[in-house]
Amino acid sequence: MEVIKSITEVMEFSQETRDKGKAIGFVPTMGYLHEGHLSLIRKAKEENDVVVVSIFVNPTQFGTNEDFNKYPKDEKGDIEKIEKEGASAVFIPDASEIYPEGFQTYVEIEELTKNLCGIFRPTHFSGVTIIVLKLFNIISPKRAYFGKKDYQQFRVIEQMCKDLNLDIKITPCPIVREKDGLAMSSRNKYLTEEERRDATILYQALTKGKDAILYHERDAEAVIKKIKETIMSKKTLNKIDYVSIVNPYTLTNVSHIESDVLIAVAAYFGKTRLIDNIEVEINANNYA
Amino acid sequence: MEVIKSITEVMEFSQETRDKGKAIGFVPTMGYLHEGHLSLIRKAKEENDVVVVSIFVNPTQFGTNEDFNKYPKDEKGDIEKIEKEGASAVFIPDASEIYPEGFQTYVEIEELTKNLCGIFRPTHFSGVTIIVLKLFNIISPKRAYFGKKDYQQFRVIEQMCKDLNLDIKITPCPIVREKDGLAMSSRNKYLTEEERRDATILYQALTKGKDAILYHERDAEAVIKKIKETIMSKKTLNKIDYVSIVNPYTLTNVSHIESDVLIAVAAYFGKTRLIDNIEVEINANNYA
Repeated sequence: MEVIKSITEVMEFSQETRDKGKAIGFVPTMGYLHEGHLSLIRKAKEENDVVVVSIFVNPTQFGTNEDFNKYPKDEKGDIEKIEKEGASAVFIPDASEIYPEGFQTYVEIEELTKNLCGIFRPTHFSGVTIIVLKLFNIISPKRAYFGKKDYQQFRVIEQMCKDLNLDIKITPCPIVREKDGLAMSSRNKYLTEEERRDATILYQALTKGKDAILYHERDAEAVIKKIKETIMSKKTLNKIDYVSIVNPYTLTNVSHIESDVLIAVAAYFGKTRLIDNIEVEINANNYA
Repeated sequence: MEVIKSITEVMEFSQETRDKGKAIGFVPTMGYLHEGHLSLIRKAKEENDVVVVSIFVNPTQFGTNEDFNKYPKDEKGDIEKIEKEGASAVFIPDASEIYPEGFQTYVEIEELTKNLCGIFRPTHFSGVTIIVLKLFNIISPKRAYFGKKDYQQFRVIEQMCKDLNLDIKITPCPIVREKDGLAMSSRNKYLTEEERRDATILYQALTKGKDAILYHERDAEAVIKKIKETIMSKKTLNKIDYVSIVNPYTLTNVSHIESDVLIAVAAYFGKTRLIDNIEVEINANNYA
């Protein structure tokens, strides 16, 4: 496996790969890889001739008071994991090459960034879109893989590709959870033992909300109330940013639930902000 | 020459061209072609195996009170001219395919759009960048050609390519002028006979400003004053948006002229807004 640090080199690598008629599957990450990331690499490996993974803790997607400086790192461990999954190359650029002096370009996805995390992290998605677009242009993959834990990110990237006529298939992959239900996240490392135990409430509460809908609750506010009460039962819960029931395509709030929805949540346990979500399909097979 | 209206078809055309190892030179236009556009096509033809020209009057780069609805059109005449120059394809997309329902993506170049036309047409450049980026992604050219009459546009596009890691060479081409010095523009068609005569003052004034600098005037304000006075001598002059002396790379205003500058002007003759500019090189060979 090639470990590539420079933009020019990885562009050469991907150009040579495409010249051989081989399809590149791309998995962008911020490193500190867990099973969620590895599931993306496996999916990319299944569907493409060559897999490229990037590791870059992208400064532009962190707000001023967020955790950019303490974001966990384990480059050596990450490279080993990526190689074990059979990727062909890992791209680990330097921030100074990604954002050289004079850099001044941003990409705004106007509608899909208005709700959910867009409310609480107002500059986050423009940081995500710029880095992903740059990486897409550098790697020129045929397919790219994103975890559904960052569901809004997946929809934003999908829309960006559509609107910019990028010939890249965006493939969302299922959330990977710990045995007790907590969605895997590099940020789980920040949690104290007690916070870690309490944080399992997020998935329990989402499941309770989903069940309520499947048992024909149609009032979104009632479902949200139930989820919030469940989460608030935990002592180390610090703050709920949002519990929202949204249209899974437009990410706009739904009040009366008539078709498929996404229930999404962001909450702090201690100082650590966690997000999670669950998809709810409304169909004839719903519970009695 | 192929006349292509659909995005899918032109993507196929350009993919096939690239698969044959041929380089595409791309000339994006809003149609109603004049010698300035044709000079871009000729340059593209010289430097590339295949030339693609696009014609699209891009709604997103017009302000609400601007001339989108009356922008001149001559599709048949344009196609003839493009074919005569030896282009391989002309792409004439429909606005509904370029901006389908739900379209919501914009690209902002933050610094280079702050001065000059960016002040007076605050949404213009985000319309330019989005359409050019979309066309670049659709056509995937090796090189693209822009006239220096829209000097700020050229710098904005150049910066966008750099910041987004697009592997496209942006080639600026000299302003093409009428015999009396007026910079060629599709908008010259709007001018009455008297306005048309008066409009020649723009280039005369720019030349006078350039001469003053070459004769060692170093105070930008003094040069600007001279240019403004010259332009204001004309009866059909309606309004000057700006006369600015700027660093040609950053497009920021210069007060003391010590190195190369660009003098740029935007002014209305009657209801028609015209722009023009002139580059001034500062070196040892300047006039005595």
